[in-house]
Amino acid sequence: MSGLVLHEYPASGNCYKIRLVAAHVGLSLERRTYDIMKGETRTPEFLAEVNPNGRIPVLQDGDRFLTESNAICFFLANGTKLIPDGHYDQADMLRWMFWEQYNHEPNIATLRFWIRYVGLDALADAQRVQISQKREAGLAALDLMDRHLAERRWFAADQFSLADICLFAYTHLADEANFDLEAYPAIVRWMERIMTMPEHISLDD
Amino acid sequence: MSGLVLHEYPASGNCYKIRLVAAHVGLSLERRTYDIMKGETRTPEFLAEVNPNGRIPVLQDGDRFLTESNAICFFLANGTKLIPDGHYDQADMLRWMFWEQYNHEPNIATLRFWIRYVGLDALADAQRVQISQKREAGLAALDLMDRHLAERRWFAADQFSLADICLFAYTHLADEANFDLEAYPAIVRWMERIMTMPEHISLDD
Repeated sequence: MSGLVLHEYPASGNCYKIRLVAAHVGLSLERRTYDIMKGETRTPEFLAEVNPNGRIPVLQDGDRFLTESNAICFFLANGTKLIPDGHYDQADMLRWMFWEQYNHEPNIATLRFWIRYVGLDALADAQRVQISQKREAGLAALDLMDRHLAERRWFAADQFSLADICLFAYTHLADEANFDLEAYPAIVRWMERIMTMPEHISLDD
Repeated sequence: MSGLVLHEYPASGNCYKIRLVAAHVGLSLERRTYDIMKGETRTPEFLAEVNPNGRIPVLQDGDRFLTESNAICFFLANGTKLIPDGHYDQADMLRWMFWEQYNHEPNIATLRFWIRYVGLDALADAQRVQISQKREAGLAALDLMDRHLAERRWFAADQFSLADICLFAYTHLADEANFDLEAYPAIVRWMERIMTMPEHISLDD
């Protein structure tokens, strides 16, 4: 594969996970960045040419545009060792990727966005009333991860996989949402294993 | 495969989609039902033996327990014609499955649950304040589906796939969340195509 273009906002964990997969499988991506805080993904050009939903990330492969961060990760990693063999192990990996988008991202990533980018004072009432619920759900997600990792090195199939990358992206930023990761020793050890891999790149790379 | 047990709540769309996949691939599932309205998935036995998160659906394969409805669907369909060939087409199918869990289920399925099962009068304030936002997001999801289907018979890869089954489950129940599906003619035609397939089973089958 070549000529792949990632339309992205660099500080987004959903965009970072795609760059991290690309680094692990040795693919280079052309990066086109947009400032979502300035509405650059809501311009008529972006909506017409990249994504009518005005969301990033989008992976462009010629005239095809793929959305949903975890689906993009699957596309880039398909056929590589980041996806385990075996039907059960593949499903178990996807289990954690679906869990990430349903139970982790809407809580931890959204709180990070509200606290660090929007600002708590600027939230709408319908957002503010959800903070305590998202805090509680975020804590539950981290607790479940820590208990899972207490007995395992990786999330699925006894191997480093897309499940680890997709969960790492926003977990390692959870402190920016005021979660104290030191309370989760198994998560900290797992993050260290990922960050010391030779293929690893950081959010700012 | 045999001896698979589906731990489920029959009225859940997330459980139904698994039964529908099984029907299409010719697998029989032993069904164990729990009444979530009576807390039957929060008993010490369920938490210890089936799922420590107290959630259904769970697919049991011997001593392995798989969660996340769309991951379970992928497990049952892996290697069948419900998953297209080709890396891009597989990713495009998964794109719609991730989209379903992030943009469709939390709005349409949650409103259905609140309206039909919990009752609007019994909602907490933090839930009630989200109704208009979920209504708007649910309408946007149906609108996007209708526009996509206006030019296509199926969601991904020009073929009936898991993307169609996973999206059908709660879409065909959207009237129970007070969405008017007649406003979406391409969705109605797509649902008719699915419901007239010889392998199709209904929620109540």
